[in-house]
Amino acid sequence: MAAVHSRAARSARARLLGISSSSPARSQRAADELGIEHAYDGLTELLADDRLDVVHICTPNALHHEQALAVIASGRHVICEKPLAVTVAQAEELVRAAERAGVTATVPFVYRFHPMVREARARVAAGHVGRLLSIHGSYLQDWLLEAGDDNWRVDAALGGRSRAFGDIGSHLVDLIEFVTGDRIARVSALTSTFFGSRPSHATVTTEDAAAVTLETRGGAIGTLLVSQAAPGRKNRLHLEIAGSAESIAFDQEQPETLWLGRRSGRVLLPRDPAQLGPDAARLSVVPAGHAQGYVDAFAGFVADTYAAIGGESPEGLPRFADGLRAARITEAVLDSAETGHWITIDDEGTA
Amino acid sequence: MAAVHSRAARSARARLLGISSSSPARSQRAADELGIEHAYDGLTELLADDRLDVVHICTPNALHHEQALAVIASGRHVICEKPLAVTVAQAEELVRAAERAGVTATVPFVYRFHPMVREARARVAAGHVGRLLSIHGSYLQDWLLEAGDDNWRVDAALGGRSRAFGDIGSHLVDLIEFVTGDRIARVSALTSTFFGSRPSHATVTTEDAAAVTLETRGGAIGTLLVSQAAPGRKNRLHLEIAGSAESIAFDQEQPETLWLGRRSGRVLLPRDPAQLGPDAARLSVVPAGHAQGYVDAFAGFVADTYAAIGGESPEGLPRFADGLRAARITEAVLDSAETGHWITIDDEGTA
Amino acid sequence: MAAVHSRAARSARARLLGISSSSPARSQRAADELGIEHAYDGLTELLADDRLDVVHICTPNALHHEQALAVIASGRHVICEKPLAVTVAQAEELVRAAERAGVTATVPFVYRFHPMVREARARVAAGHVGRLLSIHGSYLQDWLLEAGDDNWRVDAALGGRSRAFGDIGSHLVDLIEFVTGDRIARVSALTSTFFGSRPSHATVTTEDAAAVTLETRGGAIGTLLVSQAAPGRKNRLHLEIAGSAESIAFDQEQPETLWLGRRSGRVLLPRDPAQLGPDAARLSVVPAGHAQGYVDAFAGFVADTYAAIGGESPEGLPRFADGLRAARITEAVLDSAETGHWITIDDEGTA
Amino acid sequence: MAAVHSRAARSARARLLGISSSSPARSQRAADELGIEHAYDGLTELLADDRLDVVHICTPNALHHEQALAVIASGRHVICEKPLAVTVAQAEELVRAAERAGVTATVPFVYRFHPMVREARARVAAGHVGRLLSIHGSYLQDWLLEAGDDNWRVDAALGGRSRAFGDIGSHLVDLIEFVTGDRIARVSALTSTFFGSRPSHATVTTEDAAAVTLETRGGAIGTLLVSQAAPGRKNRLHLEIAGSAESIAFDQEQPETLWLGRRSGRVLLPRDPAQLGPDAARLSVVPAGHAQGYVDAFAGFVADTYAAIGGESPEGLPRFADGLRAARITEAVLDSAETGHWITIDDEGTA
Repeated sequence: MAAVHSRAARSARARLLGISSSSPARSQRAADELGIEHAYDGLTELLADDRLDVVHICTPNALHHEQALAVIASGRHVICEKPLAVTVAQAEELVRAAERAGVTATVPFVYRFHPMVREARARVAAGHVGRLLSIHGSYLQDWLLEAGDDNWRVDAALGGRSRAFGDIGSHLVDLIEFVTGDRIARVSALTSTFFGSRPSHATVTTEDAAAVTLETRGGAIGTLLVSQAAPGRKNRLHLEIAGSAESIAFDQEQPETLWLGRRSGRVLLPRDPAQLGPDAARLSVVPAGHAQGYVDAFAGFVADTYAAIGGESPEGLPRFADGLRAARITEAVLDSAETGHWITIDDEGTA
Repeated sequence: MAAVHSRAARSARARLLGISSSSPARSQRAADELGIEHAYDGLTELLADDRLDVVHICTPNALHHEQALAVIASGRHVICEKPLAVTVAQAEELVRAAERAGVTATVPFVYRFHPMVREARARVAAGHVGRLLSIHGSYLQDWLLEAGDDNWRVDAALGGRSRAFGDIGSHLVDLIEFVTGDRIARVSALTSTFFGSRPSHATVTTEDAAAVTLETRGGAIGTLLVSQAAPGRKNRLHLEIAGSAESIAFDQEQPETLWLGRRSGRVLLPRDPAQLGPDAARLSVVPAGHAQGYVDAFAGFVADTYAAIGGESPEGLPRFADGLRAARITEAVLDSAETGHWITIDDEGTA
Repeated sequence: MAAVHSRAARSARARLLGISSSSPARSQRAADELGIEHAYDGLTELLADDRLDVVHICTPNALHHEQALAVIASGRHVICEKPLAVTVAQAEELVRAAERAGVTATVPFVYRFHPMVREARARVAAGHVGRLLSIHGSYLQDWLLEAGDDNWRVDAALGGRSRAFGDIGSHLVDLIEFVTGDRIARVSALTSTFFGSRPSHATVTTEDAAAVTLETRGGAIGTLLVSQAAPGRKNRLHLEIAGSAESIAFDQEQPETLWLGRRSGRVLLPRDPAQLGPDAARLSVVPAGHAQGYVDAFAGFVADTYAAIGGESPEGLPRFADGLRAARITEAVLDSAETGHWITIDDEGTA
Repeated sequence: MAAVHSRAARSARARLLGISSSSPARSQRAADELGIEHAYDGLTELLADDRLDVVHICTPNALHHEQALAVIASGRHVICEKPLAVTVAQAEELVRAAERAGVTATVPFVYRFHPMVREARARVAAGHVGRLLSIHGSYLQDWLLEAGDDNWRVDAALGGRSRAFGDIGSHLVDLIEFVTGDRIARVSALTSTFFGSRPSHATVTTEDAAAVTLETRGGAIGTLLVSQAAPGRKNRLHLEIAGSAESIAFDQEQPETLWLGRRSGRVLLPRDPAQLGPDAARLSVVPAGHAQGYVDAFAGFVADTYAAIGGESPEGLPRFADGLRAARITEAVLDSAETGHWITIDDEGTA
């Protein structure tokens, strides 16, 4: 992810002062590859560099908590990869720490930065969708399809108790709540670990897939299917919400178009800056018909984070509280799968 | 539905001797419109016509049980619309009656007769899909989207305890089990009645939508979303199954193509008789690129029913036992929604 | 094609009295396969059967002229497969003969009978499209892709001087003129015969593909690409017309949807009888979301032909004059390709 | 376009030293908006800045020739927007000047930098497509749909003799020749100016649309439709080539997928770096399923231009000779439309 972070930071006109990886040698290699000025020996040396305003954390999940706390303690602003932390308690602590320190602390729920996601959100907020009735979401990948596929994320010690849901389901639920303005109230879930071991992991405990039934606070019902072993699906986050007046569907792999469903027909709304609402138009960087993609969304996220650091209040910036929210829902999904019961997502005690 | 039944029967080269509707006047009108020779005064007169070999029942759900029993008792073969009956007990009785009478008794799970559904089934059976991992199903319509929409199906007294799931969810679960060869073992469900009353129904108790999490006997997990109030969706039964080697997706509104997902890419398999398996090729009536549709599928179902009556054993014919199976799953979905618990679908006691 | 004709005739509630093929034995086999009452020994015997009202001609192109003349001379109504004849002169003679005899004489430009084609036509007629600016048409198949593929149509003696354009390009230009209400005024064309010989044809002179630039009488410009050797395309007739207010696209392989292009977005208009114009609604035989296909379109054509025979004036029925029109355009395309010049399509002398 | 150039240059890790626009005030405004260090008073001052290595020219077409000559004369490398020049003679002069000066001189035929375009090219080169049979191309936009739409490009004095073809048709023909490795040999064309005047242009002489029939040197035939007034099409460059073994289609608005057509079915090939050829993989900057877009392609073009300046020989870099080639084809299209004759595209005399 460091390559994407550095590309986006450059696009946002940042100066990339230095990078630190898991060893000095790897730091140097990364600095060379990414064209970054300096390779730090580690986080301590990095935090000692007075010129730094903001630190991007893109390390294994289990390290986020300690590293983000250190960055915050140093008074720096922080962008921390999701999942923000591997437990709700850690995420809560991070939210509190960032608030107390008064720093800008964001999580790259980057799909929020596709202009058509903003347009979907604006349509819901303006009442075009009507009362929210149902939600149909999925996030399907195939990079862990075979027993021989492996990665540090498979290891609960590094990746956390949840894998598929924490890693990609978190994007899906963030998007649902971001677009609808509603909140997931309770879930009934089933998880499955398709391969009990992988080449470097004798025992795999984290889920390859999760199936979820949900109800929102507003009374809508829905389903979520999340899998890292769905052949032919590379990174397909698909969301269709049905309201009493209109449906909206968004496909992350074709992010330039919204599908609007009405009784009278279906509309494919292209990303045409001349016709979008202000927030979607703001995030459009090329004319209609010239595809924006993932890097553009990431660059928008980084630019908005920097704008927030500069004192602005950009619409829809995903902050640590949003990372905490995703952690709560992830925990509820796993708890439901373990107990066989519906689990209510409680926000009490949120910082 | 009588129009589709008569069109399909004609295509299957049947002679349409007569029709009976809810009154002699309506019977006569239907006979005129559909070009059918005779209008019976009622079921009794109809069953007295010795020339009849087979009776098609397409009446409100709550009448199926009594009428089908009468047809079977008369020794005729019977095609009974789904849901076969409004309770599991009724459906069990019908299965037993048909077996004892030795008549051919079928239920129009008509989507089984799209050639590409047969091709999907053949691919699973041949092992191309590998171990079944996950199921992603939905059946979305919008004909009951507005509070002002109404229909006899809304009335539990005529349509039965379940509406959306019994009416269309039953197609979806039949298709899942037909294609995968696996069985749904247990469900956790949530239902919602979006409108508590409709113009002619002061109190509506049947569900407009259902959200389901499921596990199969083979260990796959999945979700189902069924709704009659999803704007922009007319009759969209969509099913995507993911196996350890291949995914397959089928969309009832575009039934001429299967989507196959593999790590190496996605294949759109057209209905090309020259390349299909024998069962799919058998049901192809026009060359590749000339769309087959719903009427063709229905005609295939009727032709196969007539072939069974004639002593053949056509592959994949949906019989009363399949209607019973759908009734069991429907009941489990409603029970789960009412109790908040997982419900196991038990086939014990099946005739 | 006899199978499709008989299926459609049955659907239109015709009684199928008999069939004649190229030999008595083949006639008998066809009668058995298609469930037709009688096998005639030949056209003479067939025309001697006084019970016949209408004759369907689906023989090799070069026979159409003589056979249709005989049918007309006997006073019967006639449906003759396209191309109506292999020369303009023959087609003119047929038009005149049918007119003089006062019989109903139609050509199965069957794509006219997809409801969404009617809807496209109605949109143009109502002015929704505005001034017609450009036409983008193609008709691509792959059944003659390989040198080893062969068929009687390859033989100019049986199929006529033109193959790809006469066989499928004729459908495309008929559709263009039917939908737009405009007329193709002149063409510049290039043809190609990809394989100079095929297994049973030492010398192949007819074209595998044609590329055409055109101008309409109304001043629109456009291109047509027609090929029987485009791998992956089975029967893809695709037409996109752009007007000063709206574009419309139709894909024969997905005939249930029109694509409407407007500056503000793209609309996918489903075949929903509740929302269509009267002519499209008239041809809808199943509800929205239940696919209609090729057989339904063919059945609509046959039913309308029979209605015309019965004295009605169904909208949009393709008559022999339309077959002649397609023959004129086909001849112009071949002439342009041979001479390298623009060829104007002249209707002078049309019967 | 300056915004896209600056974004891409930054992504390629360039330092943006300064910018010059049509007046000092506009230069300053552009520098502020784009975060560029300095605003030059004009080209003379710009060329006097010794620190500059490369100059990006994105001015009205008619200025390209004079400005590019000046940049080359100063010994700088140059990126010049397309069309490279408004006449073939000017383009030839630019090619010669750049060659003599030994500078790197490129034209942003940016669609070459979508990885899936490279994959298409590699498939053709590897023989997967077989003998090229037909080409079906179009480039449709709607930004000049209405009589009230206007732009400097409409003015022949600024934009050149050709508008639609020179501006966007040039992209299409470059892509065709780049992907197929074949060359367009001759064309028959028709052009149309839908609006004879626009708000700021009393007489419009340049074409809104062009329809072209073509033959390649290798013997393939094809059609091109280019329009800036096709409602609902924003920037749709679509290309489908059919070979004797495989078809390939590419849609610039969905650049992450290639459509491969084979008799056995259709393949949707996703941009998955793990499975692409080396050139496509090289241009992939994010994993499969994370959309790359126009900015990524442009950044790839700029990075490759800089690499060439640095002495590398990146595959597929569009140089001034490619700009000249597009100018030749554009001229042939206009000449054919004016004369009504086929025009052969002659490369004799090419520098």
